[in-house]
This record gives sequence, structure tokens and C-alpha cells, in this order.
Amino acid sequence: MSHERSIATVCLSGTLEDKVAAAAAAGFDGIEVFEPDLVASPWTPAELAARCADLGLTIDLYQPFRDLDSTDPDRFARNLRRLDRKLDVMAQLGTSTLLVCSSVAADAVDDRGRLAEQLAAAADRAAAHGLRIAYEALAWGRHVGTWERSWDAVRRADHPALGLCLDSFHVLSRAGDPAGFADIAPGKIFFLQLADAPHLQMDVLQWSRHHRLFPGQGAFDLPGFLARVLDAGYTGPLSLEVFNDVFRQADPARTAVDAMRSLLWLEDQVAGERPDLGLPARPAAPRLSGYSFVELAVDGVSGPRVGDVLARLGFTHAGQHRSKPVQLWVQGDAALLLNASVVRPAETGVAEVAALGLESEDPTGSALRATSLLAPVLPRTRGVAEADLSAVAAPDGTQLFFTRTVPDGWPADFLPTGATGDGGAGITRTDHVGLTQPFDSFDEATLFYREVLGLGPEEVTEIPAPFGLVRDRAVTNPERSVRLSLTAALLRRGEWSPGVPAPQHVAFGTEDIVTTARALRAAGAPLLEVPANYHDDLDARFDLDPVRLSTMRELGVFYDETADGAYLHLYTEVLGGRVFFEVVQRISGYDGYGAANAPVRMAAHRRARLATP
Amino acid sequence: MSHERSIATVCLSGTLEDKVAAAAAAGFDGIEVFEPDLVASPWTPAELAARCADLGLTIDLYQPFRDLDSTDPDRFARNLRRLDRKLDVMAQLGTSTLLVCSSVAADAVDDRGRLAEQLAAAADRAAAHGLRIAYEALAWGRHVGTWERSWDAVRRADHPALGLCLDSFHVLSRAGDPAGFADIAPGKIFFLQLADAPHLQMDVLQWSRHHRLFPGQGAFDLPGFLARVLDAGYTGPLSLEVFNDVFRQADPARTAVDAMRSLLWLEDQVAGERPDLGLPARPAAPRLSGYSFVELAVDGVSGPRVGDVLARLGFTHAGQHRSKPVQLWVQGDAALLLNASVVRPAETGVAEVAALGLESEDPTGSALRATSLLAPVLPRTRGVAEADLSAVAAPDGTQLFFTRTVPDGWPADFLPTGATGDGGAGITRTDHVGLTQPFDSFDEATLFYREVLGLGPEEVTEIPAPFGLVRDRAVTNPERSVRLSLTAALLRRGEWSPGVPAPQHVAFGTEDIVTTARALRAAGAPLLEVPANYHDDLDARFDLDPVRLSTMRELGVFYDETADGAYLHLYTEVLGGRVFFEVVQRISGYDGYGAANAPVRMAAHRRARLATP
Repeated sequence: MSHERSIATVCLSGTLEDKVAAAAAAGFDGIEVFEPDLVASPWTPAELAARCADLGLTIDLYQPFRDLDSTDPDRFARNLRRLDRKLDVMAQLGTSTLLVCSSVAADAVDDRGRLAEQLAAAADRAAAHGLRIAYEALAWGRHVGTWERSWDAVRRADHPALGLCLDSFHVLSRAGDPAGFADIAPGKIFFLQLADAPHLQMDVLQWSRHHRLFPGQGAFDLPGFLARVLDAGYTGPLSLEVFNDVFRQADPARTAVDAMRSLLWLEDQVAGERPDLGLPARPAAPRLSGYSFVELAVDGVSGPRVGDVLARLGFTHAGQHRSKPVQLWVQGDAALLLNASVVRPAETGVAEVAALGLESEDPTGSALRATSLLAPVLPRTRGVAEADLSAVAAPDGTQLFFTRTVPDGWPADFLPTGATGDGGAGITRTDHVGLTQPFDSFDEATLFYREVLGLGPEEVTEIPAPFGLVRDRAVTNPERSVRLSLTAALLRRGEWSPGVPAPQHVAFGTEDIVTTARALRAAGAPLLEVPANYHDDLDARFDLDPVRLSTMRELGVFYDETADGAYLHLYTEVLGGRVFFEVVQRISGYDGYGAANAPVRMAAHRRARLATP
Repeated sequence: MSHERSIATVCLSGTLEDKVAAAAAAGFDGIEVFEPDLVASPWTPAELAARCADLGLTIDLYQPFRDLDSTDPDRFARNLRRLDRKLDVMAQLGTSTLLVCSSVAADAVDDRGRLAEQLAAAADRAAAHGLRIAYEALAWGRHVGTWERSWDAVRRADHPALGLCLDSFHVLSRAGDPAGFADIAPGKIFFLQLADAPHLQMDVLQWSRHHRLFPGQGAFDLPGFLARVLDAGYTGPLSLEVFNDVFRQADPARTAVDAMRSLLWLEDQVAGERPDLGLPARPAAPRLSGYSFVELAVDGVSGPRVGDVLARLGFTHAGQHRSKPVQLWVQGDAALLLNASVVRPAETGVAEVAALGLESEDPTGSALRATSLLAPVLPRTRGVAEADLSAVAAPDGTQLFFTRTVPDGWPADFLPTGATGDGGAGITRTDHVGLTQPFDSFDEATLFYREVLGLGPEEVTEIPAPFGLVRDRAVTNPERSVRLSLTAALLRRGEWSPGVPAPQHVAFGTEDIVTTARALRAAGAPLLEVPANYHDDLDARFDLDPVRLSTMRELGVFYDETADGAYLHLYTEVLGGRVFFEVVQRISGYDGYGAANAPVRMAAHRRARLATP
């Protein structure tokens, strides 16, 4: 069966008016009304209900009601008075379910029988209004901190208007076991709140209030959790409740789309693992096998400069577009397009990654999947000869073209220049593309590539870069022929620091970096100078063969190693302000990107930039 | 005795070249060289040494050397080889002391005797170079996590080239007791690293690497810590080692000044509490008794608008500056200057807080103190009649004038308009000023007001505002006649959100907000509309007298209460894009600022802004 999709207003930034509009635009069926959002709104509850009805949204939950129970009879009486006021609001809202979370107050009831009595008394009030209460264990509740303890209270109260609210964060952050949901009496799960999170070693309240993520963005097993809840017979909405400092201040329209995509991802995962649960599912993402091209947007100033550098890197200007100022440069299986027809920002001389051509076993299927997952489809602005290129926009605006390269496909748009090159410098392929992300959309990007393109996310790491921490996460296909390195500056970076936005990069693979490096040096490629201290430190840290170390020092080659293998790499200077090239050799099973060397590279890029007028 | 003042390069953003320049410019005597900074630098160690000598900086420490000891003899041999390489670097640097921190590796030595042997072996290598090792317990060290354990190892090793490094973070984050420093053998504290931090419930490694602060900015008892270290006979540098995500990406020249100010604060505290230790000290900050004026920068568009609003708030345009377009508006003891002569940014129609007049018992002393604490002194751009106004710039650029108001002082610059007003609306004083801070300088601002002006910082709180979390910290004088509410958006806030930068505000006090509010409404003041839901929620939360609640609802008055008292307040709309007014009544000992109501106020301001073309 399919479930309604819902989102708590606290997930989104802005006023209640902004939030409701964003949720509706992203296709949600309902919302949870977070009380502070209503309190700050000029809409009366009835006006909010009418607005939601107009937008096709149901109001699935009113939340939260805090600190209901009390060991102090007077205070409990006051709490019931407060409850009555909120039940009045709910009646006007036309919503049936109130979230009551376990008390964190000093006067919270520890006695199980007394707690059940107080919950039943509250349920009586709700029932009198025709409403019901979903009781939730906060992970940091004073006496009720586990779902088992909340179920104990609900079971003892044994009131038809009292059930459970299960929240994946509160259960999984305490390593709770969803297998036990099978013991919950049928129909007693009144509501389900879904949130993912990264594994963090910190106070669980702070973790919950600042660092939750949408499903698929964190480290929790949300598919397993949801499957257990559905096994227990839950038929209500799948509702997101994510407190996150970044989403709190980001464009709510975007966040809502990200949120919806996370629910679709979750449904897809559960549908794939547990088809018996009958969740709607879409076909798996068509397999991506590699890069067909990487396209750089250039202009009349940056284009010739980048072309000159590509030539020195051993690339050949093999083709010229039939009708547009687009050059095709190739070496081995690596192909770059220099496109001077893209509308550029006001600055001149900029070069940046504008598009990726991704080789798909089913380009149309890839594009349809992206569309069904709310990726913006790009207008077909290309000429007829390119009619078969379907493209969508990634969260950072990079265009993604799904290709199936055949001779009369997109390469036919390019007239051969006749240039054959001199055999190149040993570059054989595109290894990875480094895309710098706006920090606001870093987690959105991870989920986008995961769900839309079927790329798997690696661990999140943080680089202590010279101009502030940089968050880093790669997404890859299983064969590692499509690798994207996503990075974002953790804070805004002061105006004084270089490269805002930080440059992107394209990394090319070679099987012999020494030979390639010598060829590049001989050709006068603008390679980045590596400080001598760096190789002195390599010498201290690793047992490197002295000749090999000496060669790396001579050629400006960086080095990293893990238990799996080694990584040798070098960089060009930044070109056109926004892009540089890397050449890499992977030895054995090295699967990373030399992140340990990134701070040295960044400092060197900064120096090169300062040295250039 | 006085101690050298030093700073670890890791405290500062940028390349090593940037960091050294910033440390020297702020007046530090020396630096700790953080190894990754050197590794990324094109300067050879000898070149760095020469550069530091040119700038008058000593190199006091090379750090860190990690994971020295090992249960695996081969690995320990490799670690000694690595040590030799680093000792070579130190010899070129001309620095005598290497920081070795306790191992976090799986092969770390647990056996106390064996650990002491390995440390002694390392000390032998250092001694052979004429160098020495300062051994530090990382709070998360595998076996050595307390200073007592590190002292045990050093004591057992009993090597003249081996001593302790004490780091206030590692000791105080684990609630270590500095009283025990008295047991450390004389001369065995080789180095002292100072860092403050907020109290956080999180993994201590993450706490240390991301959230350290300069002394005076956090919650640790740094003065007590330092006194104990000095009691133990330490004569070396007072050196700051602060890992902080914000400082990592902020202008290093500013951060270095902030850092120096923190050491001066620390010295002042210790000198005050323990004069016997002979630290240099400056006289205490002259007492501030209140606001003499608040000055708003306006222009030809915003000035008349703000003046009109002030008139409706019951202010009288009492004076006009003799030579400049500056108006003096007064009511009770509250005085506002509307200054149209300040050079404004390109936008027109802006009004913002430009300056505060702070009544000082010794204006010249206040200004001299500020100067000695590296506050930028502002050029005297005023006319001769204002010759006695000394001013400095706060970290957010607000001008602070130190005044001692007498009739022939600054008020004499203003010619009376003859207007006497109609008795006003009951406003009696300026209660507080709300200044929004750039997030990068939020902690700097706290320390600035604390050390330069002698204002005491309150707790840091976070407001879940509609457009992202807002950090909030007040600084006040003991009599509460000078209150500044400092706020900063935690993240950058999306472009879509309103009010970047967020508006500042000036809050005026009344003894009877109902009478004042009625007067303001009668005069047509542009008061902020408060949603009905807000007062409904007040009714649910508090046992308010129905008539009183009804009056608050009618007049748009917000309410907060604590155990100490109550706070009734109302707001105007935002004027000139950057400033609004608040009117407050404090009942009994209420000492806050109604932060719980801020989200409702912000949402209402946003709506009013959207409603205004």
C-alpha cells in the first residue's frame, strides 16, 4: 500500500506561510504543524486549515506537547488546562492527533502506574474532543527515554485515544532495536516520524536538535527501521521531522524538494528489500559506466588559455562543433569540451565546470528517473544534431547529460580538426571530477547523486584547510568509473580568503605518473609548485625509496598511501579563477583522493594566485 | 615577572606567511609552529627562522609530534627515525622545544616503565641535538589522558631533556585539578598552552578540535589555572593554542588582535587576584554608568522617517547641532542622535546604530584603556565644541564615545530648538541596545566588551529563529544601566531570507507599558502587529489575569516571566532597513531580554517587510 507523505514544518526555514507553500510545491500530502510556527503566524488555526485544504495538504499532527505528567497534582492540573487549550486549537485546525513527548522536567512521573493514569486522563480529554494522543519517548526523557518504556506506558493506560509515536532518531540514536515493534498491539502506532543522522559522539539532545538529516543523508538504517514499522501494521503517513541547523536557514522550497526526494529514496530502498510490503517503487537507476565528456564553460579570454594548457597536458583539439564555439579535446578516453557559448556571469576570463556527460546504459531512463525525482530538467538549447541529449541540473547547477556514445551520436556534432596529436602524455581517462558545493546544499547533493544517479556515498571527512574546514564526501558508481568529489566550506570563509567560490577540478588518470609528469614539464604545463617541506615530511612519515622520493620531489608529485594502495598525483595552477586539473595514478586498490594533501595544495594555489597579477 | 606572549600558528587562518605576519602585527613575542603549516609553506625552516627574527618573533615550540611510543619495537624504531627528521627541522628553525603528545594509536604503550624508557630514548635524541621534549597528555590519549599520568611518565624517565607541556584545555576539559601542579618538580614544566572553551556535552576530541576559545571567551577558569602554573615556578611563554572553526576561516589579523587581548585579559585577572605573582596589570576599567546617547546614522530619506517615528514614540526634537545635520531627540533620560553627516553606504534610506555614548567616570581613562587593548581609535572628525569626546571602534564597527555629560560638554554642541514636547509617552531611559554581530567576530565582541569596557558577559543562548539559529549573549555593567544584547546568525542565512544583515535595535524603558503603549497607539506609532495565536499560547502557558492578558492582546504587548520577575515589551516595525525600537517594562528582578519571544517578533518583522513595497 502507499502511504501519505508528510513533513513537519520545523524541517523548513521561514514563516509558517513559507513552509506550507514549500511543502505543497514539493508534492507532500500533509504536514505536521510545529507549534512555535503556528504561534508566530498571523493565520488563525482555521485559516491555516483552509490554506492547507486549498493546497491539498492534510494536517497530520500537532506537535509537540511537552511535560504533561507531573508528580505535583497542582501542576498536573495546570498541564491539563494547557492541554485543553491546545485541543481547542487542534479542533480548529481539523487535525486529529497530538504529539505528547515524554517529560524532561524535574517533576516528571517515574512511577509506571501513575504515568499511565495521567496519560489516560489526558487521553480522556482528547477523546472528549474526538481527538487522540500519540506518546513519544524523547531519547533524553527524564524517565521515559526508550520506545519500550513509552509502549509500556501506553499499554498500561489502555485507552483507545492513546497510542505511540515512533521517531527513528529517538530509537536509533540510542541503538534501540526496531525488531521489538512486532510486540506493539495492532493499531497502537499512531504516528511515525522519520529522521536520519550522522554518527556523532555528543549529547543526544544537541545531536537531535542540530544535526538530524533526511533519510539517505546520514548513517542510520532507515530502510530497516521503516520495514519494521510497516511490519507492525502501521498505515499512517511517512512523516519527516528533521531539526538541522543548515536546513533551518536555507531556501525552504529547495529543502522541501530534498525532503521529498529522501522519502522517495526510502520507499525505493524498502520496496527493493521488502517487495512484500507493497510500497511504490521505481525501476533502479540505469547503470552509469563512465564520463563521456566534461564540459568547461569558457569565454574569449579563458578559452584560449585553457586550450593552451590542455595542449601542454597532451590533449588534442580533435573536434570543432558544427555550429557553436565549442571545442572537443581528447586524450585516451578523456574528453573535454570547451564551450564558449554558455551564458556567463558578468566577470570575464572565468572557466568552470558547466556540465558532465555521463555514459548511461539507458539515457532516456536516466532522464526520466531524474524527472520523477524532482530534478530540474534543462531546456533543450542545443542544435538538432544533439537532439538525443537529455540533461538535468544537479543541486549545484552543474548540468548532467545522460549519453550513450555512438559514432553518430553527440560526437557527430563535432567536425574533426584533423589534428592527431603527438601521442599525448599518458593520460588515459577521466578519474574524477571535484565539484565545490554551496554549504547549504551539501547534504542535498549527496542524496541527489545517491537516489537520482544511483551513486554510492562514501564517508564524510573534514579537511583542516588553510582557509577553514572543508567537508568532503565522494559519491561513486560500484566500478569506480564515475567518481565525484563533493566539497564545501564549513563556514562562510572570510572575505579575505582566496577563491570564493573555491575552484572545481577535473582529475585525469595515468598509469605512469612519472612519465606523464616529465612530459607535462617538458611541454611547459603550468604545474603547481610543491614546497620542499612537503617532501621532507613525506620522508619522515613513510619508508619511501630514496630514488622514488627524489623523483616525486623533482616532479612536484604528491603522495598518499593506505593499507589498500597508494596515490600519486599532481596539479596545475588554477585556470580562469574556478578550475584546475589534477593528474593521478592509482596503485593497487587505493580508493581515495589524497585528501591529506589538500591543505598543501590549497596553500600552494593561494600563493600562485597571489603571485599572478 | 612578565612572560613572553606566544601564539600557535594553528590559531590563525591562512598560510604560514599570513599567520606570522598577523602574530607580529598584534604584538606577540613568539609563535608555536604547527607542523602542517610549515609543511605547506614554501619557506625552508631557515627562511622561516629568518623571517621571524626580522619580525621580532621567537619560535617557542614545534608541534605536534604524535604517536611516539609503541609496543612494537620496529614501529618504535621508525618513530625514532621520524623524530630525527623533525629534530633536524627544529635545528634549522632554531627552536629548542618539541611538543610530543600522548599516543592515541592502538600500539600505544600502557606499561608505565616502558613508556618512560621510550620517552627517555627520545629525549636522548633531542639532547644530542641540544633540544628538549615537552610531553603532553591529550585528554583522549589512549593510555595517557591526564596531566598526572603524563607527569608520572616524565618523572619516571627522569631525563634533563624531557619535561611537561601543560595545556589548559586537556586539563580542564577532564575536570583536572591544577592544585596538583605544586607537586611537579621545579623546572619540569617546559611549556604552557592556554585555551578556554564553552561547556559542551560532546566527544572531547571534537570539542577540542572545533570549539576552543581564547581565554575570557569560554567557561573555563583560566585565571585559576594560570595562577597554579605560575605557582609551580613556570617562567616560559604564555602561549595560546586554540582550535576553532570560526577563527580558522576569519581574517588572521583580527584574530591575532583578539588573541592578544585575551592574554592581556588573563594577565589582568591573575594580577588582580594574585598580585604576588608579579604579572603586569593595567588599572581596572573606569566605571560606566549608563548611556549618554545612542546615535543613528540616517540620510535624507531615512532621517525624516525615523524622526517622525520618534515623535510618535513621545520623543522631543530638543536640539539641533550647531554645524552639522545632527538632531538630538530626548525623552526622560533617553537621548537619540540622528546623524545625517555620517558617510553612508551606497544604498539610500538606511538607518542604523552608528555610535553609543557611554557615560564614564573617567572618559580619558576609558579611551586610554581601549587603546592599550588594541581597540582602533577613531579619528576626531567632530567640531571643536566636541573636542572632549574620545571614541574607539567596537569589533562590529559601532563607534563608542566615552562621555561625562555636563551642560557645557557634548550637549552644548546642540542649539535648543525650543520644543518642549507634550510630556512624552512615559519612556524614562534607554534599557539596552541590540547589536547584530558578524558571526566571525561574535566571540571577539564578547571579549572586547568584557576586557575593554569591563562589562560582564551573560550565558550564551541560541534562539530557534524563523530564518536560522541566532546566537545571543548579553554583556552588562553590574548596575544593569549599560546592557548590550549581542546576536549573530549561526550560519550565513540564505539569500532568500530577510534582513541580511539583521536589524539592530534600541530598547527604551518605561515604568508602565500599558500607559506607554496606549500613548504610542494614539500617536500612530508604527507598532508591530502581534499574532492572536501568540496571546492564545500565553494563555495556555501562564496563569495570567484575563484582564491583563486582554490588555496585552489589545496593545500588542509581548510577555515573558522567570522566577525573578516579568518582562512586558513591544516593538516598532523595522525602520530604514536596519533598526527598530523596543519599549520594555521590567517587573521585579527580570534580567533578560524576552528571547523566547524573538522568533515571533522576527516572523512579524518579516511579514511587515513583505507588506511594504
